[in-house]
Amino acid sequence: MTDPDAFLSAARATLGERGLTGDPDLVEPWLTDWRGRFTGRALALASPASTSEVAELVRLCGAHRVGIVPQGGNSGMSGGATPDPSGAQLLLSLRRMNAIRAIDSDARQATCEAGVILETLHHAAEDRDLRFPLSLGGKGSATVGGLISTNAGGTQVLRHGSMRALVLGLEAVMPDGSIFDQLTPLKKDNRGFDLKQLLIGSEGTLGIVTAATLKLEPAVAARTVIWAGLDSLPAARELLLHCQAAEGEALEGFEVLPGHCLATVLRYLPDARSPLAGEHRWHALIELDAGSRDADSLADRVEAMLAAAFERGVIADAVIAQSEAQAEAFWRIRESIAPAERAAGPAVQHDVSVPLASVPGFVEEAVAQVEGRWPGSRAVAFGHLGDGNVHFHVIAPPGSDGPRWQESDGKPISRFVHDIVARWRGSISAEHGIGQLKRDELHRLGDPVALALMAKIKAALDPVGIMNPGKLL
Amino acid sequence: MTDPDAFLSAARATLGERGLTGDPDLVEPWLTDWRGRFTGRALALASPASTSEVAELVRLCGAHRVGIVPQGGNSGMSGGATPDPSGAQLLLSLRRMNAIRAIDSDARQATCEAGVILETLHHAAEDRDLRFPLSLGGKGSATVGGLISTNAGGTQVLRHGSMRALVLGLEAVMPDGSIFDQLTPLKKDNRGFDLKQLLIGSEGTLGIVTAATLKLEPAVAARTVIWAGLDSLPAARELLLHCQAAEGEALEGFEVLPGHCLATVLRYLPDARSPLAGEHRWHALIELDAGSRDADSLADRVEAMLAAAFERGVIADAVIAQSEAQAEAFWRIRESIAPAERAAGPAVQHDVSVPLASVPGFVEEAVAQVEGRWPGSRAVAFGHLGDGNVHFHVIAPPGSDGPRWQESDGKPISRFVHDIVARWRGSISAEHGIGQLKRDELHRLGDPVALALMAKIKAALDPVGIMNPGKLL
Repeated sequence: MTDPDAFLSAARATLGERGLTGDPDLVEPWLTDWRGRFTGRALALASPASTSEVAELVRLCGAHRVGIVPQGGNSGMSGGATPDPSGAQLLLSLRRMNAIRAIDSDARQATCEAGVILETLHHAAEDRDLRFPLSLGGKGSATVGGLISTNAGGTQVLRHGSMRALVLGLEAVMPDGSIFDQLTPLKKDNRGFDLKQLLIGSEGTLGIVTAATLKLEPAVAARTVIWAGLDSLPAARELLLHCQAAEGEALEGFEVLPGHCLATVLRYLPDARSPLAGEHRWHALIELDAGSRDADSLADRVEAMLAAAFERGVIADAVIAQSEAQAEAFWRIRESIAPAERAAGPAVQHDVSVPLASVPGFVEEAVAQVEGRWPGSRAVAFGHLGDGNVHFHVIAPPGSDGPRWQESDGKPISRFVHDIVARWRGSISAEHGIGQLKRDELHRLGDPVALALMAKIKAALDPVGIMNPGKLL
Repeated sequence: MTDPDAFLSAARATLGERGLTGDPDLVEPWLTDWRGRFTGRALALASPASTSEVAELVRLCGAHRVGIVPQGGNSGMSGGATPDPSGAQLLLSLRRMNAIRAIDSDARQATCEAGVILETLHHAAEDRDLRFPLSLGGKGSATVGGLISTNAGGTQVLRHGSMRALVLGLEAVMPDGSIFDQLTPLKKDNRGFDLKQLLIGSEGTLGIVTAATLKLEPAVAARTVIWAGLDSLPAARELLLHCQAAEGEALEGFEVLPGHCLATVLRYLPDARSPLAGEHRWHALIELDAGSRDADSLADRVEAMLAAAFERGVIADAVIAQSEAQAEAFWRIRESIAPAERAAGPAVQHDVSVPLASVPGFVEEAVAQVEGRWPGSRAVAFGHLGDGNVHFHVIAPPGSDGPRWQESDGKPISRFVHDIVARWRGSISAEHGIGQLKRDELHRLGDPVALALMAKIKAALDPVGIMNPGKLL
C-alpha cells in the first residue's frame, strides 16, 4: 500500500459517507468468519451502492496497491471472505447492492445484484409461482455474489446442479476496474473462452461478481419425503441407483447418515423422534418432487418404487412422510447433524467428494483407518450420497480438552483424511471452497499442472495481486 | 520455426512412421475445410497414438516454435481446423486416438479418446440401453475432441444443453506439453478455477483435448414428433412457451422455419411432401421424448397439449407423426434446409443467437432491413427457436453470378447482419464457433473487456503462440 490516508480519502470521495466506514462497531462484526476460525483486521469497510462504484473503487485499490476482500453474507465455510490480520486490506461488502433488477417469468430468469440474500430470492421466485432450486443452511444470510464466487452446493445439487449450473449471465468488476458484462443470457454463445465459468468458484481472486442472471424453475406441485433404514452403505448406493432408474428426473435429494449420527441428533433435539422404530446401521433421507404435470401420480409412483426396493431386499425399513410437518421434521434431523455433532464435543470436519461409485469404499476405509490410528476418536461420515459428497467429521475421544486436542491432532487428522481422499481420486473441497482454510492442503495435494495453470491465469488477470490476496492461491 | 528438417526428424522419432507423414495424397484431403471456404498447407500431418505422444510432440513444437493445428473429423463450420497457407504449421490429427476407454452404465458415463466419432459413441451407448444426447449433421465424421473444442450444439440443446453440459471430465495437453488430467468426474469439486470449462469451446487455442468423460442419458422409450403450421413467429414463440409449461422436461427439440423455406426443401427433395395440407407462414417441428417411466402416457399428454394450443388459437394446423418413418420424414425436411438452400443459389449464412424473447423481433427487423437494403435478395431465418439460435441465410437475387455476388456483397451483408445482432445483444456465433471465418467480426463487435481477458489468458498459457495460431484470437 502507498499512503493509507490518501487512499481512504479518495475512497470516501468515490463512495460517499454511507459507502465507507472505519467505525470499529460497524466493521468488527464482519472481521470474523461464520465458523469463528479466522479473525482479521481491515483498513475500512467499503459498501458501494452500484457496479460503477465498485469499478471506481477497484481502480483506486489498484493504484494504491490495496488488497480487496469481497464479502457477501459472511457465511462461508473456509474463511474466504475474512481479511488477514495486517489491517492493510479493504473489506468490500456487496450487501448494499441488493436489488432484484428483473424477473422474467416466461424465460424463468431473475437478474439480481450480488448482495441479494438467497432467501429473498426464494420468496421473489415463489411470488411468481417459480423457485430458485438451490438452498442451504445459511440461506438467511448467504448472498448471490458469495454463492457464485464459491460455487455453492446444498441438498438439491443431485437434480439441479451447483450454483454454476444456475448462472445464466454474469456481471463482474475485473482487477483493472473494467466491467465484464455478460448479464444478458444467451442459451447458445460460442464466441471464445467462457469467461463467466472462470469467475464462478474463483472466490473473488479474479474479479468481483456484482450481478447475475439466474435460472428459475417451475414451482414444486407435490413432494414426497422418505426415510429409509439400511444395513450398509453399499445398500444405500444400490437404493440410490434404484431410485434414479425409476424416478431419475423427480429425485431432488438423497442424503445418508449412519445410525450413531441419528442418535447424536436425537440427543440434541429433545423433541425429535426417530422416523423408524428399529435400529439401523445407515439411514437415507430421500426427496422426490413433481411439477404440476405429474403431481397427481407422484405418491403412487413412489410407493411402487419403494415396494420394488423392498422386494429386491435393498431396504430394511422405510416410511413416507404423511404430512408437510413430518417431511420438515425429517429434514430437520438432517440439518441438525452439524450443530448436534458440534454440541457433542470437539471435532475436525472435512467436506470431501469422491467418484459416486467409490463412496462406500472410501467411507469404510477412511473410518477404519482414522479410528485405528487415533484410538478413542470416532469418525462420522454423512452427506449427499447422490453427489459423492461426504461430510467426514472426526470426533475427539471422550473427555478430550477441545482446544488442546485441536491443536495437537487437528491438522494431522486432516492431512491423513485428505491423503485418503487423494488416493481415491477425490476432492478435498466438494462444496465449501478453499479460502484460507484449505489453501495449504490444496497446494500440498493438488495436481501440479492445474495449480500452475491457476497461478498463470491469476498473474495474467491480477498482476498487482489486489483481488482477495491470500485466498485459494 | 527454427529448422524444419530437424523438427520433422525429431517428430518422426517420437511418433514413428505411422504417426507422421508428408505424403501429399494423405495430407491433402485434410487441408480444406468441410464447407470448402478455406484451404491451407501443412508442414506435415501428425497422427499421435496416445496422450503421451501428443505431449511429447507439443513440447517439440514449443522448442521449434512450430504452430499446431489440431483436427478431429474436419467437419467444423468456421475453418477452425484448417492450417494457414504458409506451410509452416503442423496438422495434428487426433483420429488415431479413437478408443472408448470405458463405459460405466451405473454412473451413465463414457470415457472416450478425442478421436472417437460421434456416431460410434451413439452406438456404444445404445448397446447399453443408454444414449449420448447430442447429435448433428456431421455425426459420421465429427469427433469427441472437436465437439468439445467447439462446444458443439445441435437439435437437442433445448433439453440437454450444448457439449459443455455433457462433459464431466477432461484430459488435455497444454501448450508447455504438460498433461491436464481431470478425467475422473466428481459431481462436486470446488478446488479453485474450473479449468475444464476454459478448455471447452476454446477451439484448440489453449490446449489439445485428448480424452473426456461424457454424460450419458437413459435411452428414449417413446418419442412423438409434431409438425405445426403457424401464422407468425410470435405465435411460434407462444407455442414454445405453451409446450414448455405443459411438458417442459419432455421437450427435446423445437425448430422453426418459414413457409418459403419449406417450399425450397420440397423442390429439392422430389419424394418429400409437405406434412400439412394448407399453406402457412411459419412451421414448427417439435419433438417430445419420454423414458420408460412415462412412455405410456406420452401420446395422450401430447394430444392434450396440442388440443389446448388449438383452443388458445396458437396453432393454425398440426399433425403428429404416426410412425417412426413419418417422424424421420419430418426431421429429414429440417435437415435438408441447408443443402436445399445451397442448391437454390448462392447465399451468405449466419449462425447467430439472441435472447429467447427477442427472436421474433430480431427476425422481423433483420429480414426487412436486409431485403430493403439489398433489393432482390431474400433473407431466410430458421433454426432452434428453443435456444434463441437463428440460422440466418441471405440468398442472392435470382440470376446473380454466385462468386461475383459473394465477392461484392457477401462481406457487407454479413457485417450488416452482425450489426443488427449486436444491437439485439446477441451472439455472432451461436454454435459454430469463431475459427478463421468470424475472427475479424468478433474483434470488430466483441466486448473489448472480454476480448482483453481472452488475450491475457492466451498469452499467459501459450506465450510462444503455438496453439492453433490465427484462430479465434
